[in-house]
Amino acid sequence: MGSLNACDILDASFAGTGCLEHPLDAEEFRRHGHKMIDYIADYYNSIDKYPVRSQVEPGYLRRLLPETAPNQPETVDRIIGDVTRHIIPGITHWMSPNYYAYFPSSGSTASFLGEMLSAGFNVVGFNWMSSPAATELESVVMDWLAKMLCLPAQFHFSGGGGGVLQGTTCEAILCTLAAARDRAIAGGSDISRLVVYGSDQTHCSLQKAAQIVGIPSSNFRAVSTRFCDSFALTGASLDRAVVADEAAGLVPLFVCATVGTTSSTAVDRLPEIGEVASQHKMWMHIDAAYAGSACICPEFRHFIDGVELADSFSFNAHKWFFNNLDCCCLWVKNPAALVAALSTDPEYLKNKATESREVVDYKDWQIALSRRFRALKMWTVIRCHGVANLRKFLRGHVRLAKVFEGLVRLDRRFEVVVPRYFSTVCFRLRPVRAGRTGDGEVDEEIASGLNRRVLESVNAEGRIYMTHAVVGGVYVIRFAAGGTLTEERHVRTAWLVIKEHAEKLIDDVDFLN
Amino acid sequence: MGSLNACDILDASFAGTGCLEHPLDAEEFRRHGHKMIDYIADYYNSIDKYPVRSQVEPGYLRRLLPETAPNQPETVDRIIGDVTRHIIPGITHWMSPNYYAYFPSSGSTASFLGEMLSAGFNVVGFNWMSSPAATELESVVMDWLAKMLCLPAQFHFSGGGGGVLQGTTCEAILCTLAAARDRAIAGGSDISRLVVYGSDQTHCSLQKAAQIVGIPSSNFRAVSTRFCDSFALTGASLDRAVVADEAAGLVPLFVCATVGTTSSTAVDRLPEIGEVASQHKMWMHIDAAYAGSACICPEFRHFIDGVELADSFSFNAHKWFFNNLDCCCLWVKNPAALVAALSTDPEYLKNKATESREVVDYKDWQIALSRRFRALKMWTVIRCHGVANLRKFLRGHVRLAKVFEGLVRLDRRFEVVVPRYFSTVCFRLRPVRAGRTGDGEVDEEIASGLNRRVLESVNAEGRIYMTHAVVGGVYVIRFAAGGTLTEERHVRTAWLVIKEHAEKLIDDVDFLN
Repeated sequence: MGSLNACDILDASFAGTGCLEHPLDAEEFRRHGHKMIDYIADYYNSIDKYPVRSQVEPGYLRRLLPETAPNQPETVDRIIGDVTRHIIPGITHWMSPNYYAYFPSSGSTASFLGEMLSAGFNVVGFNWMSSPAATELESVVMDWLAKMLCLPAQFHFSGGGGGVLQGTTCEAILCTLAAARDRAIAGGSDISRLVVYGSDQTHCSLQKAAQIVGIPSSNFRAVSTRFCDSFALTGASLDRAVVADEAAGLVPLFVCATVGTTSSTAVDRLPEIGEVASQHKMWMHIDAAYAGSACICPEFRHFIDGVELADSFSFNAHKWFFNNLDCCCLWVKNPAALVAALSTDPEYLKNKATESREVVDYKDWQIALSRRFRALKMWTVIRCHGVANLRKFLRGHVRLAKVFEGLVRLDRRFEVVVPRYFSTVCFRLRPVRAGRTGDGEVDEEIASGLNRRVLESVNAEGRIYMTHAVVGGVYVIRFAAGGTLTEERHVRTAWLVIKEHAEKLIDDVDFLN
Repeated sequence: MGSLNACDILDASFAGTGCLEHPLDAEEFRRHGHKMIDYIADYYNSIDKYPVRSQVEPGYLRRLLPETAPNQPETVDRIIGDVTRHIIPGITHWMSPNYYAYFPSSGSTASFLGEMLSAGFNVVGFNWMSSPAATELESVVMDWLAKMLCLPAQFHFSGGGGGVLQGTTCEAILCTLAAARDRAIAGGSDISRLVVYGSDQTHCSLQKAAQIVGIPSSNFRAVSTRFCDSFALTGASLDRAVVADEAAGLVPLFVCATVGTTSSTAVDRLPEIGEVASQHKMWMHIDAAYAGSACICPEFRHFIDGVELADSFSFNAHKWFFNNLDCCCLWVKNPAALVAALSTDPEYLKNKATESREVVDYKDWQIALSRRFRALKMWTVIRCHGVANLRKFLRGHVRLAKVFEGLVRLDRRFEVVVPRYFSTVCFRLRPVRAGRTGDGEVDEEIASGLNRRVLESVNAEGRIYMTHAVVGGVYVIRFAAGGTLTEERHVRTAWLVIKEHAEKLIDDVDFLN
């Protein structure tokens, strides 16, 4: 993959740098910081030279590194040389334009600048007092985003709600679930009777959160979805589960609805779910980790219709909103419920601002006390591009997915398995038993095996990287466009790569089409 | 404070930069990245020009910023100009050499370089497969650190245990507590009978974690500590609490011992606590958030004697180990217990490496699925400086605290309230009622009020920043040395500042000494 050449380019950045004399000296910082900027810029320039999915074997790095830490300082060029030679071969290039796996990680120049500021200031913004700007900027950008998403006023600070930047959706769901649980327990419910609902497509973080907050695993419901509903959770199926649980003496607590599921980007039926949640007094959370950002475009906003019925809503800005990892945006209608579950008030943190009740102390809206100044990157991303361009970028990714979808649909050996709503296409090679006619019945087992082999063949070669899902028993290959560097030419090449590998395997197994 | 001048310096960095055309273009990245390096280097050069504690009032920033996001892109120089004029006045300068509040946040050039690499690669290392180097480097550096701390082999990967980098101690305690809880529940215990123990000095994250995992608040014990034990939790007092709970039919689950408490850097008696934990089959966690790093120096290692009895051990590398926020190092003897509580296995993450059981999937060792490549910064910090210099730096901070302690002790108007073990001195102005003799009885209420006013006076002026604690009913001022930029001259100046404010107030209230 020409990586020797790429190594040489990267090596030039740090050539001849010595040791750091001081832990933090402004001029040493400046000198090495400049070199690192060049290193990373050169990495982006050469990123398509690397196999997208790392090709190393388990244990490769431990064999390359010493067993104990060095006693004496090492030169920076030596350390960075090891990054080039030992680390880069072991990473999967999530920022590559040829990365279509899981959901791409969504870095950008603007976000990187914000990350640099955040690491540079290195403030620990647990409460307002500890660095007022960290709290206030976060509140401001969360209101900006709420307006961009047309979230109801109840989610804005001015409407009694508010938003917070957490690390990941896992944390956001954990916090809201703890808040819902404590509200129920305060209302007299026993934790052992509380029930949590998602669908069989809901992200595993819901079940994990339920487990962490002490909901018995027997009280977790993954309500079945169906192919004919495009794997959306419906109000009717949720209602059946809830009614059955109530009949058994259990207490419905929390439902997580998803906008853009991980497997197939399905969209749960929010208005129906909201109605059931409301009838049964459940906390409704909307996990729009992947697709939420797209809803700043008016033409996609309908996907979150029903959000007015929810208690909380979250999306991951590090997934598809040009923020580097990590950055999850969470809004709640009732911050007091979060605070009741998560607040602490030790003596050493007491201060006048908190006592005045005029400020937000975000430590009480999340798990951790310490928190990075994440709002800086969100702020730089929004301002550097403006809402108009952010919409344009998101639409561009959707357009790339449509291009790919079009290519798949033009080739009758392939099929798009579920509707494409956003920038991800779930497709597969549609095998037909040799000897049958073209429209014959699909043998699912053979289909899965073949698609699995195609995917592994593509990924092992390394020009592009995709991952898989199984929906309704069907093994699908996921093509998640949306990498910041991906352009139409990359998508068209990706399709040629996929066809090439598929054709080779189809020949091998002697399939007719 | 001369901040206008500092503003002018910072302004020069980004003068005349236009808008970002692309979300990520290598040459735009390079150009703006270089400017940001200069901006941050200039910030460090001028950091002592700012009031250390931000002087803004609640709501200052919301009034300065627009209510909605800009629709069109803004120039980078304009955005950074706003950072200079609107954000910097609103942050407390945690990286200032004159910062002695809470515990300093511990940034360094080496760590910043690692942060840049981490943000630049932007890999989402949830499991080994998603970026093998992220997992393997983390395992390697955690073994390096375990050896640097002389942790028993059971905490090393080679000894069946292992380490993980989390964000904060809050998360580390939450994960270990969930593991302990699930082990107890699997053993037949009811969650409503499980009891969690700390001391009245334990960090509030323990109580918060207990609340999150569903331990009834009536089952949380903050065992009292005493002045005569220097606020250490002792085995005898823990044992009394445990025996009483067992007699009441409850089940002792988890004890958190602290090495370097937040208020006064007290050190709990680990060997005694370990014995009690062992007798009653409790999970013992050691929270060495602040002081753990110092234990890489042989002369401080004795503070964690008894760690061999613990199930888990953690310290915050962002507190006093030259890692920028956030970075918490957690080791466990039995990773299987963590995995049992925290693992998920969705179809879309299935892969051969996981199935081979030859790899660590860190998503099962923590709350979140997504995780940043934090090991890069720890690796660069350790290698750039080497163990010998890291020890030297830590000793340097302890020496600064000793210098300060000496200055306090030389002035009979002041006293050091609790023993200084590390780089933090808890002291106060020792007032004596007017009219009594010099050795008269201290009036605690007057003493608290006076010290509170001295502290507020110092902090409001902004040349230095300290915070307070209350231990055993005594209001103390905490002088936490250990900022990366702090030198002896800063400490000596800090003492002069403190004396100046104290003398002014002593005059005001007409105290004699």
